[in-house]
Amino acid sequence: MADRYANFANSGLGRTVVKRLGLPDPPRLRRHRPGDPLVDGPVLLGAAPGGRLSEPVRKQLGDAGVEVALSPTEGTRHGALIFDATGIGDSGQLRALFDFFHPYARSVKVSGRVIVLGTPPEATPGPKEATAQRSLEGLTRSIGKEFGRGVTSQLVYVAPGGEAALDSTLRFLLSGRSAYVSGQVVRIGAGTPPAPADWQRPLDGKLALVTGAARGIGAAIATTLARDGADVIALDVPAAGDALADVANSCSGRALQLDLTAPDAPARLAGYLAALPHAGADIVVHNAGITRDKTIARMSEDRWDSVIGVNLTAPERVNDVLLERDLIHTGGRIIGVASIAGIAGNRGQTNYATSKAGVIGMVQSSAPLLEPRGITINAVAPGFIETAMTAKMPVGLREAGRRLNSMSQGGLPIDVAETIAWFASPGSQMITGNVVRVCGQSLLGA
Amino acid sequence: MADRYANFANSGLGRTVVKRLGLPDPPRLRRHRPGDPLVDGPVLLGAAPGGRLSEPVRKQLGDAGVEVALSPTEGTRHGALIFDATGIGDSGQLRALFDFFHPYARSVKVSGRVIVLGTPPEATPGPKEATAQRSLEGLTRSIGKEFGRGVTSQLVYVAPGGEAALDSTLRFLLSGRSAYVSGQVVRIGAGTPPAPADWQRPLDGKLALVTGAARGIGAAIATTLARDGADVIALDVPAAGDALADVANSCSGRALQLDLTAPDAPARLAGYLAALPHAGADIVVHNAGITRDKTIARMSEDRWDSVIGVNLTAPERVNDVLLERDLIHTGGRIIGVASIAGIAGNRGQTNYATSKAGVIGMVQSSAPLLEPRGITINAVAPGFIETAMTAKMPVGLREAGRRLNSMSQGGLPIDVAETIAWFASPGSQMITGNVVRVCGQSLLGA
Repeated sequence: MADRYANFANSGLGRTVVKRLGLPDPPRLRRHRPGDPLVDGPVLLGAAPGGRLSEPVRKQLGDAGVEVALSPTEGTRHGALIFDATGIGDSGQLRALFDFFHPYARSVKVSGRVIVLGTPPEATPGPKEATAQRSLEGLTRSIGKEFGRGVTSQLVYVAPGGEAALDSTLRFLLSGRSAYVSGQVVRIGAGTPPAPADWQRPLDGKLALVTGAARGIGAAIATTLARDGADVIALDVPAAGDALADVANSCSGRALQLDLTAPDAPARLAGYLAALPHAGADIVVHNAGITRDKTIARMSEDRWDSVIGVNLTAPERVNDVLLERDLIHTGGRIIGVASIAGIAGNRGQTNYATSKAGVIGMVQSSAPLLEPRGITINAVAPGFIETAMTAKMPVGLREAGRRLNSMSQGGLPIDVAETIAWFASPGSQMITGNVVRVCGQSLLGA
Repeated sequence: MADRYANFANSGLGRTVVKRLGLPDPPRLRRHRPGDPLVDGPVLLGAAPGGRLSEPVRKQLGDAGVEVALSPTEGTRHGALIFDATGIGDSGQLRALFDFFHPYARSVKVSGRVIVLGTPPEATPGPKEATAQRSLEGLTRSIGKEFGRGVTSQLVYVAPGGEAALDSTLRFLLSGRSAYVSGQVVRIGAGTPPAPADWQRPLDGKLALVTGAARGIGAAIATTLARDGADVIALDVPAAGDALADVANSCSGRALQLDLTAPDAPARLAGYLAALPHAGADIVVHNAGITRDKTIARMSEDRWDSVIGVNLTAPERVNDVLLERDLIHTGGRIIGVASIAGIAGNRGQTNYATSKAGVIGMVQSSAPLLEPRGITINAVAPGFIETAMTAKMPVGLREAGRRLNSMSQGGLPIDVAETIAWFASPGSQMITGNVVRVCGQSLLGA
């Protein structure tokens, strides 16, 4: 599953060849290592007049030990540019974006960060401000495609009253944890989340259930949540028992063998969780998923039924039983795994895309209902991730998937896992109903 | 602006070469010609049990003179497959989609149509049905990519109470008018729209204002609205006067020379419209738009300001003045022109993408406010359209833009104009707040 081309392009000879021939130039992405500073260099913070977020951001970054520059010095290379656009009340005032990004665009370091903060259009007092705030998305998505060199660019909409809820999101987006997340729109609601006692182990004392945990992305999720302090229950089908035991051991967790598509499985899972010391779970990650690709003309009933059953119906049934029996604690998290195919559709994947679009529907329709219970529900939507599955793709398709994104490379399972860990963080209590792609800003979309 | 490759691929020799070498195979798309039947062959209509739309659809298609088959005969080639999915109440019932599309996928003719009808997820009674209805999008987008041969595939969400409002949309989506529209999601609200006296001239008696009408897409919009019966005011800057006069003459309309970015222009336009016999307009199409591409680091202030000013602020100011002075009639239409770049972002187009994302914001935020006045607001978002502008693109970029979509070719200005004419139709009174791409289901998206 190695990306040999990226390794070559980052070698001494490779750099020369890539530059001379104008070939795709996948940078080595900065990824999180414990002990690293949050962001690689000073953060330049700007604001349109009248914004409400630059003060809270300055404070939250200061608490996180990040060096914040308000007036830049000539020649400084920045780890990130953050712009508070909440003061922009109409399209004429969009000029403040140009005034900030034009002079400092070139000051962003490799694997640097661009974050624009806005007000959700639906939470503005009228159409002039809504229009201007909505237009921010055109800017951040263009910057993501323009800056290159591993720089990510995001738009974060913060609801009025959500000013104190930015911390977990800034720490995620500025750090190497979000290496393969770019061109995304994140929505933060009103309220003040609890701050973790220890930002290195924000999930201390939490119990996390991860389905499909024996391999690939699921294994990365289990170990990442454990790294962040969670007790992990790694669940997979009995046939994956040995690999599952290895994962459970590696994160000092429990292994649970269960085929979630069996009629009695959700009830059995509920019984298992009810019998635990704290009776229930804090974090449920519905990662288990399968593909059975064929055009719909050639597809068997079984391929349709099994993909819908595993990817969509099983998570719905598990949620139903756990919520009915009160087995997801207050402050709990439900996290689904959608897919770019669920957003854009894909040839040969009518069954898979239908199931993954359904996961998005599950998140969006359940979020408002779960809010009164203090439970959030969100999903990641992975793009091309380097796994044993993608390693088996025909070389042409594989290379297209790897290169047709702003990072010119595939993501790693850890990139998906880090995004899930951000949703899982107590600091993300005000984030619900979001679907965030982990795709390096893939060109593919809807 | 000719697509020489597509012409070649459709020639006798070309067909052989394209097949032997496995090259992109752009079909000749069926486009509307007056007098043609609405759809090229019988329509197969299916439904999941309990659906509420197949009866209204059967009746509306019957009135339109379309042959509808409920139980198909072996070997029949269909002009369209329509499936009423409103009866699907949970993910387990999605199987009805497979049961309908699996056996008949191959029966769809070249340039045929696939339409799935659903209930807007936000209008369902609960998350199970919302999830299943949201998942339909994964199916229709996949079918668009899978079927090829000029077949388009759409999802139409019909709000409860909107059963009688489907007519204009079915006629548009089934006909050659929607040749380059695929992979889209359309939302129809509750209510019963007026039926045009003559479906060949649905805009009889309506006055339409089209900005940027001297050339390309704007000229096509003016002539298409005139073909459908509207009196047209073709507006453009004074420098385009001669071309503008030609367009106005060709559609027996009026030419109005005005630079809409001038401070007094909206008021002057309002004065002009107020002095007309019926004092005001029925249809306002904000087509005028410019590009001034540069990366933001190399961009001048002027390039930023002029693009935002022409593409976004001018339409906002015109709307404000016309609405304030009651110069858009009840049953009126405001139609914006966004862009794929406003959805996905684009390198070198931070200014353009910001302005076009703003157009989407203008539509979404204004729609609920205009509904009580009986005015709808929608936008088209063109992809790669063959114009003098795209003819000047570097060949590599141009070929990528042309081929990276489900039609393997660029669209024509008429394709954008037909989509606008559909929004403008009296029958589309229940359609507002929609952004519909005219992009042949381009791979590019967000």
